[in-house]
Amino acid sequence: MAFTVFTSSGPGAVDEEGLAALAVEGKPFWVDVHQPSKEQLTALGRVFGFHEISLEDCEIYSEMPKVEEFNRYLFVVLHGHGFDKENQEFEHRELNLFLTPTALVTVHLDVHHSIEAIRAQVEKDPAILAAGADSLFFRLVDFLAERYLPLLEGWEDDLDDLEDRVLEGGADGIVEEVISFKRRVIGLRRSINPQREIFRLLCSHENPYISPQVRVYLRDTYDHMYRVHEELEGIRDMLTSLMDAYRSNLSVKMNEVMQKLTIIATTFMPLTFVVGLLGMNVTFPLVEAGSHMPFWGVSLGMAVLTFFMMWFFRRKKWL
Amino acid sequence: MAFTVFTSSGPGAVDEEGLAALAVEGKPFWVDVHQPSKEQLTALGRVFGFHEISLEDCEIYSEMPKVEEFNRYLFVVLHGHGFDKENQEFEHRELNLFLTPTALVTVHLDVHHSIEAIRAQVEKDPAILAAGADSLFFRLVDFLAERYLPLLEGWEDDLDDLEDRVLEGGADGIVEEVISFKRRVIGLRRSINPQREIFRLLCSHENPYISPQVRVYLRDTYDHMYRVHEELEGIRDMLTSLMDAYRSNLSVKMNEVMQKLTIIATTFMPLTFVVGLLGMNVTFPLVEAGSHMPFWGVSLGMAVLTFFMMWFFRRKKWL
Amino acid sequence: MAFTVFTSSGPGAVDEEGLAALAVEGKPFWVDVHQPSKEQLTALGRVFGFHEISLEDCEIYSEMPKVEEFNRYLFVVLHGHGFDKENQEFEHRELNLFLTPTALVTVHLDVHHSIEAIRAQVEKDPAILAAGADSLFFRLVDFLAERYLPLLEGWEDDLDDLEDRVLEGGADGIVEEVISFKRRVIGLRRSINPQREIFRLLCSHENPYISPQVRVYLRDTYDHMYRVHEELEGIRDMLTSLMDAYRSNLSVKMNEVMQKLTIIATTFMPLTFVVGLLGMNVTFPLVEAGSHMPFWGVSLGMAVLTFFMMWFFRRKKWL
Amino acid sequence: MAFTVFTSSGPGAVDEEGLAALAVEGKPFWVDVHQPSKEQLTALGRVFGFHEISLEDCEIYSEMPKVEEFNRYLFVVLHGHGFDKENQEFEHRELNLFLTPTALVTVHLDVHHSIEAIRAQVEKDPAILAAGADSLFFRLVDFLAERYLPLLEGWEDDLDDLEDRVLEGGADGIVEEVISFKRRVIGLRRSINPQREIFRLLCSHENPYISPQVRVYLRDTYDHMYRVHEELEGIRDMLTSLMDAYRSNLSVKMNEVMQKLTIIATTFMPLTFVVGLLGMNVTFPLVEAGSHMPFWGVSLGMAVLTFFMMWFFRRKKWL
Amino acid sequence: MAFTVFTSSGPGAVDEEGLAALAVEGKPFWVDVHQPSKEQLTALGRVFGFHEISLEDCEIYSEMPKVEEFNRYLFVVLHGHGFDKENQEFEHRELNLFLTPTALVTVHLDVHHSIEAIRAQVEKDPAILAAGADSLFFRLVDFLAERYLPLLEGWEDDLDDLEDRVLEGGADGIVEEVISFKRRVIGLRRSINPQREIFRLLCSHENPYISPQVRVYLRDTYDHMYRVHEELEGIRDMLTSLMDAYRSNLSVKMNEVMQKLTIIATTFMPLTFVVGLLGMNVTFPLVEAGSHMPFWGVSLGMAVLTFFMMWFFRRKKWL
Repeated sequence: MAFTVFTSSGPGAVDEEGLAALAVEGKPFWVDVHQPSKEQLTALGRVFGFHEISLEDCEIYSEMPKVEEFNRYLFVVLHGHGFDKENQEFEHRELNLFLTPTALVTVHLDVHHSIEAIRAQVEKDPAILAAGADSLFFRLVDFLAERYLPLLEGWEDDLDDLEDRVLEGGADGIVEEVISFKRRVIGLRRSINPQREIFRLLCSHENPYISPQVRVYLRDTYDHMYRVHEELEGIRDMLTSLMDAYRSNLSVKMNEVMQKLTIIATTFMPLTFVVGLLGMNVTFPLVEAGSHMPFWGVSLGMAVLTFFMMWFFRRKKWL
Repeated sequence: MAFTVFTSSGPGAVDEEGLAALAVEGKPFWVDVHQPSKEQLTALGRVFGFHEISLEDCEIYSEMPKVEEFNRYLFVVLHGHGFDKENQEFEHRELNLFLTPTALVTVHLDVHHSIEAIRAQVEKDPAILAAGADSLFFRLVDFLAERYLPLLEGWEDDLDDLEDRVLEGGADGIVEEVISFKRRVIGLRRSINPQREIFRLLCSHENPYISPQVRVYLRDTYDHMYRVHEELEGIRDMLTSLMDAYRSNLSVKMNEVMQKLTIIATTFMPLTFVVGLLGMNVTFPLVEAGSHMPFWGVSLGMAVLTFFMMWFFRRKKWL
Repeated sequence: MAFTVFTSSGPGAVDEEGLAALAVEGKPFWVDVHQPSKEQLTALGRVFGFHEISLEDCEIYSEMPKVEEFNRYLFVVLHGHGFDKENQEFEHRELNLFLTPTALVTVHLDVHHSIEAIRAQVEKDPAILAAGADSLFFRLVDFLAERYLPLLEGWEDDLDDLEDRVLEGGADGIVEEVISFKRRVIGLRRSINPQREIFRLLCSHENPYISPQVRVYLRDTYDHMYRVHEELEGIRDMLTSLMDAYRSNLSVKMNEVMQKLTIIATTFMPLTFVVGLLGMNVTFPLVEAGSHMPFWGVSLGMAVLTFFMMWFFRRKKWL
Repeated sequence: MAFTVFTSSGPGAVDEEGLAALAVEGKPFWVDVHQPSKEQLTALGRVFGFHEISLEDCEIYSEMPKVEEFNRYLFVVLHGHGFDKENQEFEHRELNLFLTPTALVTVHLDVHHSIEAIRAQVEKDPAILAAGADSLFFRLVDFLAERYLPLLEGWEDDLDDLEDRVLEGGADGIVEEVISFKRRVIGLRRSINPQREIFRLLCSHENPYISPQVRVYLRDTYDHMYRVHEELEGIRDMLTSLMDAYRSNLSVKMNEVMQKLTIIATTFMPLTFVVGLLGMNVTFPLVEAGSHMPFWGVSLGMAVLTFFMMWFFRRKKWL
Repeated sequence: MAFTVFTSSGPGAVDEEGLAALAVEGKPFWVDVHQPSKEQLTALGRVFGFHEISLEDCEIYSEMPKVEEFNRYLFVVLHGHGFDKENQEFEHRELNLFLTPTALVTVHLDVHHSIEAIRAQVEKDPAILAAGADSLFFRLVDFLAERYLPLLEGWEDDLDDLEDRVLEGGADGIVEEVISFKRRVIGLRRSINPQREIFRLLCSHENPYISPQVRVYLRDTYDHMYRVHEELEGIRDMLTSLMDAYRSNLSVKMNEVMQKLTIIATTFMPLTFVVGLLGMNVTFPLVEAGSHMPFWGVSLGMAVLTFFMMWFFRRKKWL
C-alpha cells in the first residue's frame, strides 16, 4: 500500500508510516491517489484525521461539488470534465481535494487532465511545492476551472453554426441539436453553479488552510467560474430564441407553400371549369361544327382571364 | 396502550409508565408509533411534554414538511414517498419526528420503507442506539432522503425515453405524457423544496437536540435534497424544451404534407386542364379525325411539361 | 351608537362609555363592528387611541393586506373570501383587525363567514375569551386562512377537469376557461402573497400584543398560507402547460386533417387526369368503337394505380 | 429672480435674500420652482447648501427616480404622470424634491397635477404648512402616488376589453394592441420599481428630515406603489396569456377552415371522378344510346355515395 | 521606456525613475499606458507595488469587469465600447484602472473614446488634476458609463423600427434581426451586469482610495449603469413579444390564404362537377340535340348556385 507523494525535493513513493512522518515534519507536500483502495482511504484517515464521511465521498461518485470545513482540514469536491469517447460527449469527472495546513491530498476515480498537467509541472520543478500546499491547491483548481473556457468556446462556435443553419432556413436535425445542446447546458450548469459558489466562499471568507496571499489568486478562479456561468445563461437564452426562430421559419415556409398552392388552384380551377363547360354534351350557341373560331375564341378568353389573374396576384404581391 | 420502544438493550413494548421511566433514565431510545390512537398521542404529550399543536399534526395529514423548535423538543415533519399501487404512481407519505435530548419519537399513519429499514438495523444491532437519539434521527432522515435518488433516476430514464420518442417524430400520447410528467414534477417539488430548507437549517444552525458531530452528517442529507431539487429543475426545463421540440416536429410534418399536396396539385392541375381543353366539344385546328398524331402530340407535350415540373421541383429541393 | 361586545361573561351591547370602562377594566374582550358609522370609528379612536390613518383604512376597501405595529395596538388588514352570487365567482372580503393587549376589535364592511363562526363559538362558550384577546385573534385569522384550503381544492378539481378535457382533445371553451382561470389565480395570488408575509412576520417576530404561546400557533396559520401560495404556483404552472398541450393538440388535429386532404387529392387527381385524358376529343390508338375492352383496360389500370397508392400510403403509415 | 413661497401665513414671492431669511427663521415653508433658470438653481444652492450634483439633476430629465440623503437635506426624484395629448398616451413627468428640516423645495420642468392640487390646498388653508415641511412632503408624494391608481384602473378596463375581444375571436389589431400595451407596462414598471423602493426606504429607515409621525403615513404611499407594482405584474402576465389565447384561436379557426376544405374536396373529388369516367370517349358496357337509364343509374349511385359521405362526416363530428 | 503622465502642471513623458519620483512626491497625477510592453508593466509593478495578478490582467483581454481592493491600490477592470468597423457592430473594449491615493494608472490595449476625451480635457485644463486622482477616476468612468446611453438610444430606435415592421406585417429578415438583436442584448448585459455591481460597491462602501466627496458623484455613474440595465431588460422583453407578434401575424396571413383557397375550391368544385356531369357520354333526359335550351338552363342553374354561395360567404363574413 504505497502512496505517490510530491515534496519540494521531488516525487517519491511512501507507505503509511512515511506519510505520517511527512505530515509531522511540516513541509508542504502533495499526495495523489488514483482509484483509492479501501485500505488507502483508511490509512489517509488515520494519518491526517480525515472524517469518515469525507472518505466515503471519495469512494463513490458523489453528486454535487461542495466545500466543507472540518476541524483539521478543508474538504473540496470539484467537477472537472473530460471527453467521453464512447458517447462523443463531454463528461463530468469528480476530484476530491483535502487541504491541511501542510498537505494537499487529491483522490479521484477518473483520470484528470489537470492532475496530470500539475504533476508534470511539479516533477519538472519541485520547488513549486515550497510555496505551500494552498498554493498548489490554487494551481490545481485554477487549471481545472480554466479548462472550462475552451469547452465553452467550442459551444459558442456550435451555437454560431446552429444559428447560421437556422437563419439559412435549414431544417434537418435542428430540433435534435437544440434539445441535445440544451441537455448539455443543463448538465454543465448543474455542475458549475455549486462550483461558482465554492470559489466565492473560498475567496471571500477566511479559513485557516488558505493564506490571504493565495486567496487573492482564487478570485481569478471565481472569475473563470462566473464567466462560465454567465456564458451558459447566454447560450440557454439563445437556444430558446433559436427554437422560436426555427418555428417562425417553418411558418414562413408553410405560408409560402400555401401561397403557391392557392395561386395554382386559383389559376387552374376557373380554367378547368371553362373547358369542362365546353365539354358538356349539349348544343352550344355560336359554336358551329367544323369552324375553328369557337376554339380560338375560348382560348383567347382563357388567356385574358389568366393574364388578369397574374396581374391581380402581382398587384397583391403574391408573385 | 403499549408503545414499541428500542433501546440499546433491544426492542420491547412498554406502557405509559414504562415510557416515562425511560424518559427519566436518560439513555437514548426510540419510540415508533404507527397509526397512533388518540390516547397514545395524549400519553406522549404527558410523558415528553409535546405541545398539543404538534400532536394534532400527527393525527392528520399536514400539508407541508416543516421543522419547529419547541422548548423541550424538536418537531420535524417530513415527506417520504412510496408507490401507490392503485394509481400506479408515487405518493407522498408523511413522517412526524420528535427529537428530545434522549429520545426519538416517530409517529406515522402510513407504512414507511425508511422506518422498516432502520428498524431492521436496530433490531440486528441495538448498539446503534448507544450513539444517541440524534444519530438515529440522522440515520432515519438520511435513509428517507436517499430514497428519492432512485426515484429521480427512474424519472431521468423516463425523460430519456420521452426525448427519444419526440425526436423520432412519434406523436401518440406525447402530450399526455408531458402533462402528467409535469404534474409529477410539480408535486414532488412542492414536497422537496421545504425539506431542502429544513435540512439547510438543521445543518447550518445549532440546536440543543443535535450534536455538532451529527450535524456534520446532516450536510450530506442536505446535499441529497439539493441534488433532487436541481434534477427536478433540470427535468422541468427539459420538459418545456421537449414540448417545444414536439410542436416544431408537428410543424415540420405539416410542411412536408403541404409540400406533397402542393406538388400533386401543381403537377396534375395543368395536366387536367390540358386534357379538359381537348375534351371540349368544339372543332380543334390540326386535329384530324382518325389520325393518332393529335393524341401522341398532346401526350408528348404533357410528358415534357411533367418532366419540366419535376426538374423545377428538384431544383427547388422540394423532392 | 351601540357596540356589540363579547366578554368572558357573554355577549352584550355597550355605548362608548361602556367600551371605555371595559378597556380600562383589563379583562379580554372582543368588539365586532359591521359596517361602521363615522361616529363609531371616531369613538373607537377615542377609546383605544387608534390612529386616524388606521381608521380611514376601515372606511374604504384598502387595497392590500398589511400589518402595522403602532404604539398602543397592532393593526392587521386581511382578505377573507366569499362567494359572489352575482358573478358566480369568489370575491375578496376585507377584514380589519385591531389588537390591543386586552381587546380585539374587528371592523368590516362585508359579511365574513369566519366572524360568524367565531361569534357562534364565543356565544356558546364565552370562556374562550378568558384565554386572551391574542388567542381569539389567532382563532379568527386561522379560521379565515383555513377557509382558503377548500377553495383551492375546488380549483384543483377544476384543473383536473380541464386537464381531462384538454387531453381528450376537446376544444369548446378551453381557451376561455384557461384565461378566466389564470385571472382568478392572479387575483388570489395578489391577495395571498402579502398575507403569507404578514403571518411570517407575526410568527417569527416578537410583539407586545401576541404572547409567545399564541405565536407558536400562528406558525400553523403561516403554513396554511404557504401551502395556498405553493398550490397557486403549481396551478399557474399547469395552466401554462395545458395551454401548450391544447395548442399541440390543435396542431395534431390539423396535421390529421391535412393528411386526409392530401390522401384524397393524391388518390383522385391522377385518376381524374386519366379519365380526362380518355375524354379528349381525339382518336385514341387501340380504342375501337363498340368494343368494351378499352373501358375495362382503363378501369383495371386505375384500380391497379389506386391499389398501389393505398399500399404506398399504408407503408408510409398515413392510413 | 423671484421665488414663489408658501408659508403658514399664505403664499408670496421673495427674492434670494427673502428666501435666506425664511430659511434662517425656522418656520416651515414651501418653495415651488417651475422651469428653473440657471440663476434660480444657483441661488437655491447658496441658500440651502444643495449639492451641485443635485442641482444638475434638476436642469435635465434625469433617468431614474431616486432618493439620496445629503448632509443638509434629502433629495428625492420622482416620476408623476400626465397625459400627452400629442401621442394620446400617458407620459412620465419628473419631479425633484429637496427636503430640509424646515423647507420643502420642489423643482420641475413639467406641469404636475399633484403640485397644482397641493398648491390649491395650501392657498385655501395655509395652516397646513404649520404641520411641518415633512408633512407637506407626504401630502405631495402621496397625491402623486395615488394618481397612479385611476391610471391603472383604466388599464385594467383596457385589459378587460382586450380579453373580451380576444375571446370573441376578434382579430383586427389585437397584436398591435398587445404590443403597445406591453410597451406601456414596461415603461411604467421602469418608473414604478425604483419609486416603490424609495418609499420602502423612506418608511422603514429613520432620517432626520422626516419625523416618525409622518413616516407612519408614508407606509400608505408605499402601499400604493406596491399595489401599482403588483397590478402591473398581473397585467403583464395576462397579456402573455392573451397572446397565447389569440394564437390558439387562430389555430382553431384554421382547423375549422381546413375541415371545410377537406369536406368539400372529399365530397366532390370522387363525384368528379365518376362523371369524368363516364365522359371517356370509349364504349361503356350497359350504356345504350337513347336510354335514360344509365344517367339515372349514375345519378343514383352518386347520390348514395354523397349520402354515405355525409353520414360518415357526421359520425366523425365534422359537420 | 517612457510613460505619458499628466500632472497639474501639464502633460509630459517620464521614465521609470521619473514615475517613482512623482509617486513619492504626493501630487495627483495620471499615467496612461496604451498597449503596454512587458517592461512597462513590470516597471509599474515596481513603482506602485501592483500585484503580479493585476498586471497579468492588463496583458490579456480578461473576461469580466471587476473591482478588487489590494493593500496599496484599487484595481478596476471596466468595459467601454467602440464601433467595430469590420463587423459593423459595437464591441467591448477593456480598460484597466489602478487607483492609488495619488495616482490614476490606466492601461489598455484598445483605443478608448473616454480616455481620449478626458485626455483632451486634462491637456486643456491641467488644473483638473489638482482635485485628486479619485476625481479624475470619476470623470473617466462616468464618461465611459454615459457613453452607453446614446448606444441604448440607438437600440431603442432600432427596436421601434423593428416593431413598426412587424406590425405592418413585414416578413423579410425579421427573424434574423430579432436573433441578432437578442445576441447583442445578451452580449451587452454580460458586460453591464458586473459593472453595475462594481459601481454599487464603489458608491456604497468606503475605501481609502475614493474620498466621500467623490463617492457622492459615483452614485450618478451607478444610476447610468442601472438605467442601461433596466433598458436592456425592457428591450429583451419587447423582443420576445415582437417574436410572438410576428408569429401571430404569420398565422393570421396563413388563415387568410387558406380562407381564399377554401372559397375558390368551394365555388368551383361544385360547378366543375355539374359541367362534368353534363359531359358524360350518356343520353340525358330533357336534352334535345340542336336545342340551346339545355345550355342556357345549366348556365342559369350554375349562376344561381354561384350567387347563392357568394351570399353565403358574405353572410359568414368570409368575403
